[in-house]
Order: sequence, then structure tokens, then C-alpha cells
Amino acid sequence: MSTLAERATGGDVRAMARLISMAEDRADGVDALMRELYPHTGRAWTIGVTGSPGAGKSTLTDKLIEHFRSEGSTVGVLAVDPSSPYTGGAILADRLRMQRHTDDAGVFMRSLGARGSLGGLSRGTREGVLILDACGYDVVIIETVGVGQSEIDVMRVADTVCVVLVPGLGDDIQAMKAGIMEIGDLFVVNKADRSGADRVVNEVRGVLEFLKGREWVPTVLQTVAENGEGVPELVRLLRLHREHSLKSEAGRERELARLRSKIEDIMLERLSDRVEKLWTVRREELLEAVRERKLDPYAVAEELLSKA
Amino acid sequence: MSTLAERATGGDVRAMARLISMAEDRADGVDALMRELYPHTGRAWTIGVTGSPGAGKSTLTDKLIEHFRSEGSTVGVLAVDPSSPYTGGAILADRLRMQRHTDDAGVFMRSLGARGSLGGLSRGTREGVLILDACGYDVVIIETVGVGQSEIDVMRVADTVCVVLVPGLGDDIQAMKAGIMEIGDLFVVNKADRSGADRVVNEVRGVLEFLKGREWVPTVLQTVAENGEGVPELVRLLRLHREHSLKSEAGRERELARLRSKIEDIMLERLSDRVEKLWTVRREELLEAVRERKLDPYAVAEELLSKA
Repeated sequence: MSTLAERATGGDVRAMARLISMAEDRADGVDALMRELYPHTGRAWTIGVTGSPGAGKSTLTDKLIEHFRSEGSTVGVLAVDPSSPYTGGAILADRLRMQRHTDDAGVFMRSLGARGSLGGLSRGTREGVLILDACGYDVVIIETVGVGQSEIDVMRVADTVCVVLVPGLGDDIQAMKAGIMEIGDLFVVNKADRSGADRVVNEVRGVLEFLKGREWVPTVLQTVAENGEGVPELVRLLRLHREHSLKSEAGRERELARLRSKIEDIMLERLSDRVEKLWTVRREELLEAVRERKLDPYAVAEELLSKA
Repeated sequence: MSTLAERATGGDVRAMARLISMAEDRADGVDALMRELYPHTGRAWTIGVTGSPGAGKSTLTDKLIEHFRSEGSTVGVLAVDPSSPYTGGAILADRLRMQRHTDDAGVFMRSLGARGSLGGLSRGTREGVLILDACGYDVVIIETVGVGQSEIDVMRVADTVCVVLVPGLGDDIQAMKAGIMEIGDLFVVNKADRSGADRVVNEVRGVLEFLKGREWVPTVLQTVAENGEGVPELVRLLRLHREHSLKSEAGRERELARLRSKIEDIMLERLSDRVEKLWTVRREELLEAVRERKLDPYAVAEELLSKA
């Protein structure tokens, strides 16, 4: 094994952080490192925490860390922030709260920006999970901010997906839930001390009715992350899902689906790189011809590909 | 020209809708059709309307349609909905409002789901714009729901990007604006009759300060889409940007960048199709080996790509 991978799996946090940065930057040599680490993966439990902005995901994550730590499990957290494509990984105010765990050697936290990712999940998220797994973290939590593609992508990476909802965020956001309704293994209505929480629970139950008969039917529970209310029950239900996945055929199929999209993502990345290189010195000339409608984009793409 | 392309450019709305569906499904023969249509494109003005969920984008789009129609321009609308990857193009309540234009032959509206797109923009969006352009629509409005990658992708397709913000959507969403701040040619603070509108305007102005000295510095204006307040001024400013793009070097460069990513996207799609075929044959066997850690995802990706 290379020194860097050896140091990381041996417990050197700085080496681990370095590996994640390399993955985020798609630095040279990172694939070779990932290949070394891969045989050491497969033990961690990856939990995706996703939902609307303002739902209290960070506070909930904070309480989950606390709970898992109290049971002796080590926890790695990847906070994915697709909102900052240009600046890369803004630290939101809520996330500062989690910083209280930074002195705990059993907790590793990292923010990932959304630089140049193909889908909604930041580049480096997939590798980040593998790295934390190989380095022995028992639980890896991926927290995403945002509504849209990123939620879907969480499912492709996480073993268990927890969707966090909240009362009173307006109708559009309610409508959006339709999309994320299909990816949750568990639904949490957080800030349950606010009025309207029961209504949200009922709405979700109404939607989940349609999933009856499946091997795993998601449940809905209420939490008040702020004061820890409902968190032990949340952990119990998350664990129930984990146990179900590990022994069911559905769980095995989902793992294969996850590996499949992992491989497809890697290929897609490679192909994007290849495409950029296909442009020859003739780029400006070709683009100008397309602009003037002397050529069309499809013809140019075809021509460049024929030389690949 | 093929009959379908001929019928569409001749004003047959059903033929046009058919073309867009074919593009969305990437049906056989659609490239040939797009190549036929391409020489007829380049006339339409494509406006991207994007922003946070609940900002009132659909209501604003509705008013823009009304305004452009009153000036005699024809309008095509593509409503991109990345929130429903499974169901494909949910119609949100707000969008129903726009349906009042369906009896107007000068307006064409179409929802696109996010099925299997590589980036955040739905498959078919790029072609949809070209089709509407070739069929003679003066203005093509792309409306996206969602926060994240899709906003960035709108920029790659639209001539003019209008970012819609709204007071009082909470701090998370405020933080998110950082990402979309860089893609707007114009910023609208909608629902400006709500308290806090001035504060949002000032915040945006603060950020835009950093762009001073550029050829085009975006402005911020307030609207109340609900009653049409500010819409004529919005159109005036949108048009100002359009005129600037048409005659400035920056506008020309942006068009070339757009054509470049269009061509690269087409190449990527082609290459993905090739890989997909190789993958299909050996998929189960390879996935099982990766699951058992006998192979790693990087090695599998590399092997498949080497044969593509």
C-alpha cells in the first residue's frame, strides 16, 4: 500500500483529510489510491440525511453523532453543499453547531462543495464515503442541503436514507416532497413542537400508503432535534432498516444498484475527460461555423467522435 | 426535409410536440431531425427563469407570457421539473395558472421531467429549445424548479438568465443564493409586497458590488408577479441584456461557450450509449465480483472504457 493510504487506514486523520481533498480535486493518482482502499471497505453503515432547506438536518445530524458516540461507534460526517458551485463548500451557520465534536477523535467531519459534479452530489462524496469506510468509521453520515437531484443521488450512495421534513415550509416545498418521497427509508417530521406537525405526518402517511406491500415500508416519526426528543426512537428505526437491508434480497439488490451507479459515475467522469480532449486545435473554427449555422452541433460531435 | 420536421416548422403544433417527446426519449432518428432543424435556429431569444422553490417563478413566467403576447411576440415555454425523477414532469399547482394560455395559438407550453439526464437539466431541454426556435417562436422561456445544478445548466442554454428571489424563505435559502448569484443576468425580488423585500434587494446589491467593472453588471428589481407590478420594467431590463449580448464581445463568447457545451453534451451522450451496451452484457457478473471485493469499481470502469 502507498504511504498515504497506509497512514489513513492506520488512523492518521490528516492523511485521511488529504485523501478526501485529492478525491474532491480529482488529483492525479487518486484512482490508484482508491483501488488500494477498496478492499478495506464494506463495513461502514452509510446514512443519508436529506430534506428541504431549513428542516433542521444539521441539528439532527448533531444529535445522531452524539447518540452513536454514546454507544461507542465512531462517526464520519460528509456535509454536502451543492449550493456553492463556484465557491466550494460554504459552511452554514447550523453546521457550526456540529463543530463541538471536533475535539472528539471518534468523529470526523468534512464539508464538500459541489464543484463540477455531474449530478447533484458533490464530486468526492462517493470517494469520501469509501475513504471513511476503509479508515474504519462505523457510521458515515451524508448530509445534503438542497432540493432536487442531490436527494436522489444520496440514495445512490447511502445504505439508509432519512428524509427530514418540517411543518410550515409552504406549498411548493410540500409539492417537491413528491420527488423525495420515493427515496426515503424513514421520514422524520422535525420541529414537531411547531403547529402543523401532525398534518405533515398525516400527509406523508397518506403517500406511504401507496408503498404498502413492499418488503420495507418506511415509517414516519416526529422529532424535536433541538432538544433531542425522538432521537433514540429515530436511531432504533434506522437500525431496523439497516438490519433488514443486510439480510433481505431487497437490500442485496439495492447494494448492487449502488455499485452499478458507482461504476457508471466513474465511467461518466472518464468519458467527460475524454470528450474535452477530443477537441483539437480546430475548436474555435468549428464553433464559429456552428454559430453561423454552416455546421450543426450534431455533425461536429459526430466528426470529433469518429476520431476518438 | 422529413415530413415531421417540415410539419413542425410549418406550424403544426402536434408535430412539434412529437419532436420534443422524441428528443426527451432520445428516440431513433431524432438526431437526423435535429440536424434538419438546426439551420432554422438562431432567431429565438431564450430566457431562463430560475430561483428558489416558492419564489413565484411560474406566476412570473405567466406574466411574462402575457406581456410578450401583448407585444405580438410568440412564446414557447419549457418547464423543467427535476424534482420528479420517477414520475416525470409533475405539474405543480402554480403551473396550472399558466394553462390559461393554452387556447392561444401563439403560446406553446411543455413540461419536461428529469428522466435520466446527465446534468441537472432534463433530457430534451437542449433540443426543446432548438425545436421551438426552429419553429419560429420569438421568445423561449425555460423555467426550472429546484436549487442546485439545474440553475447552472440553465445558463448553458439560455441567452438571458433571470434569477427570482423572495423575502422570508429562511437562512438556508439565503445561503444558497451564493451559488446562483453568479449565473444571473438580472435579479428579481418577487413578492416585493412582503416585508423584508428591501433587505433582500440590499443583500443582492451587496454581492453584485463584486461584479463591478464587468461588461454587464446585473441589476436587481422588485416585482409582485401576482398583480403584474414591475413586470414591464422586468421586460425592459431583460431586453437591455439581450441587446447587450447581441452586440458585445462578451455575448458572442457566451454563445460560443454555449455551443461548445452543447457539442460536448452530445458527445458525452454518444459515448455513454456505447459504454451502456458493453456494460449490459456482463453487468451481473461484474457487479457481484465488486460486491465481494474481488474487483474494484475503478478497475471495472477502466476495463469497460478501454473497449468503448
